[in-house]
Amino acid sequence: MNEYNFTSQVRTVWWEEATDGRAVVHMLDQSLLPQQVVYLQLTHEQQVADAIASLKVRGAPVIGVAAGFGMALALARFLEERTAAQVETTPTEIEAHLSEVGQLLRQTRPTAVNLFWAIERMRHCAQQACKEDASPHHIAAMLKAEAHAIAAEDVQACWQMGLYGAELIADGDTLLTHCNAGALATTGIGTALAPIYMAAHTGKRVHVFVDETRPILQGARLTAWELQQEGVPLTLITDNMAGYFMRQKSIQAIFVGADRIAANGDVANKIGTYSVAVLAHVHQIPLYVVAPCSTIDLELPSGEHIPIEQRKAEEVTTLYGIPIAPMDVAVANPAFDVTPHTYVTAIVTEKGIIRAPYGETLRAICTKN
Amino acid sequence: MNEYNFTSQVRTVWWEEATDGRAVVHMLDQSLLPQQVVYLQLTHEQQVADAIASLKVRGAPVIGVAAGFGMALALARFLEERTAAQVETTPTEIEAHLSEVGQLLRQTRPTAVNLFWAIERMRHCAQQACKEDASPHHIAAMLKAEAHAIAAEDVQACWQMGLYGAELIADGDTLLTHCNAGALATTGIGTALAPIYMAAHTGKRVHVFVDETRPILQGARLTAWELQQEGVPLTLITDNMAGYFMRQKSIQAIFVGADRIAANGDVANKIGTYSVAVLAHVHQIPLYVVAPCSTIDLELPSGEHIPIEQRKAEEVTTLYGIPIAPMDVAVANPAFDVTPHTYVTAIVTEKGIIRAPYGETLRAICTKN
Repeated sequence: MNEYNFTSQVRTVWWEEATDGRAVVHMLDQSLLPQQVVYLQLTHEQQVADAIASLKVRGAPVIGVAAGFGMALALARFLEERTAAQVETTPTEIEAHLSEVGQLLRQTRPTAVNLFWAIERMRHCAQQACKEDASPHHIAAMLKAEAHAIAAEDVQACWQMGLYGAELIADGDTLLTHCNAGALATTGIGTALAPIYMAAHTGKRVHVFVDETRPILQGARLTAWELQQEGVPLTLITDNMAGYFMRQKSIQAIFVGADRIAANGDVANKIGTYSVAVLAHVHQIPLYVVAPCSTIDLELPSGEHIPIEQRKAEEVTTLYGIPIAPMDVAVANPAFDVTPHTYVTAIVTEKGIIRAPYGETLRAICTKN
Repeated sequence: MNEYNFTSQVRTVWWEEATDGRAVVHMLDQSLLPQQVVYLQLTHEQQVADAIASLKVRGAPVIGVAAGFGMALALARFLEERTAAQVETTPTEIEAHLSEVGQLLRQTRPTAVNLFWAIERMRHCAQQACKEDASPHHIAAMLKAEAHAIAAEDVQACWQMGLYGAELIADGDTLLTHCNAGALATTGIGTALAPIYMAAHTGKRVHVFVDETRPILQGARLTAWELQQEGVPLTLITDNMAGYFMRQKSIQAIFVGADRIAANGDVANKIGTYSVAVLAHVHQIPLYVVAPCSTIDLELPSGEHIPIEQRKAEEVTTLYGIPIAPMDVAVANPAFDVTPHTYVTAIVTEKGIIRAPYGETLRAICTKN
């Protein structure tokens, strides 16, 4: 099978050294899509943290990748400054610096576990290198390689999820997705959208209903744009229309991503996923969660332990700075909700498709090579 | 009980003669709320039709009132022009004119039955007057009186729905509403919000979760504004958050209005009501539909016969003219959905509260004096 064209068109986050050798993390500013396609050049870990917190980069897998590159950037920048000042750097200082940077990145967003997973993986890599008495610049090189590995594994995982998940799609199906769990949420062809791209790629006719996904409109701004780029036919709807189309029997399956999956199969994902899941259940439509194993958090027994990010009121009361509600109105803005495992028909991972009982199957898939 | 303060603060549609005696329909332009409070002065039936079609006035009961005033205005204007031109007008010409105006108003919006009900009532009034050999100006006066009667009955019906519906609310309840079925949707204190105002008025502590109600944001723009004016505590949420708060057991009951109720109790209401109803059912939260008998259409056996208005794509893809989705994206925009009667806990009318079997209770309440 050929490389899927799409991956060459959308690039979310990548590492590129400047002509002077300085490390730069490049990033598509998703907050400006679809009106503007702007790439940021980040040279400081604080910029990476700000980009994650302000949703310039969003989507669980690519947040992990961004954090990986952010850690590598942080060390490269640190050593550059030290070298310029002609100061030696000890392994202890490196570990202390990375611990601080990890703390900085950790505070950006609480729900997606890939963030914490990537930070830990980068710190572990540095610790190993320090133990092996590597030179500071060798440690920096190793961190860079590790960040690239996280990105490469993400590309590969997306592809595998696409292959497994496409089996769940029949020729002629109309599917529903919520938020953006596509190429823009990863460094590959996406999580929830990967099976759809793969199905289309192998000649199946598919149509996608896209929930606009208030308040940030990731569906309207990102998923609709992505699917348009790729030529996958879609219909954009407001979130409150999904039930209407399910009742009309217009939708054969639902594909969503995940920000964190607890050990029992409960799934945290973008606010509104729970309502979609309940509606799918009542209409006997399968709900598939597509996520790499790095999204599975076996340390949390169930969804009620997943921290839910509460974001600011302005996201609900204004749009592009324009007020759409009365001044000073009280607002709730939970960014995620938890879908109980009983509503999840299957979870598609890069290692295969698993079904209930998730308590057993999730543990098994995580330890599978 | 005193007149509820609120009714004196929000005026949606009323009749007022200009100093030169010319008929003018005054109307709050709801499309500009909450940023601007602008009152329109309409002197031609075409302006009334345009105001209904462009949602300057919206909400089933007040659409009926606006249509009534529109018919009265149309005849007054017609006779004025004839008189100025020194042309006599026959009863046949009056009936022909009103038939045309009825057609004009009828084409504005298809779902709310109150529109058709009010047009028929006005035409019937004119026909009666014509039969009785009334003079053209007497017929015009009778139409004006009939339009005022429709408005006055609406005020009274709202009050009664408030009294009956308040019994369903306990002290300390948190309620959810969708769209705007408040004072802004009527000439009184509202339909779905009437019981809430009445409960608050009689000292019950209530809190209201308000669905923003995409795409037109009647919840964010109108209901939030209305409740703020009245001092009823509220929390504004996006539509996709309702399920989250139901699961958290934050909501004790749901109050919505209706655009049309079929003979079997199926309810057409603002898009998204169906999803709210399914979620309420799954969480065992009562769903109350509050509507005057003029919203009940016994001629339609079930909800599948209710015509659902499909509105233009721009309502979904732009907000205040700003694009929020890619150009030329395909969009679905059904303005209403149908909630099957099995999800409706009770219907609150101005004549009392009815419950299943709606096939019997709806027919009984409609014939009750």
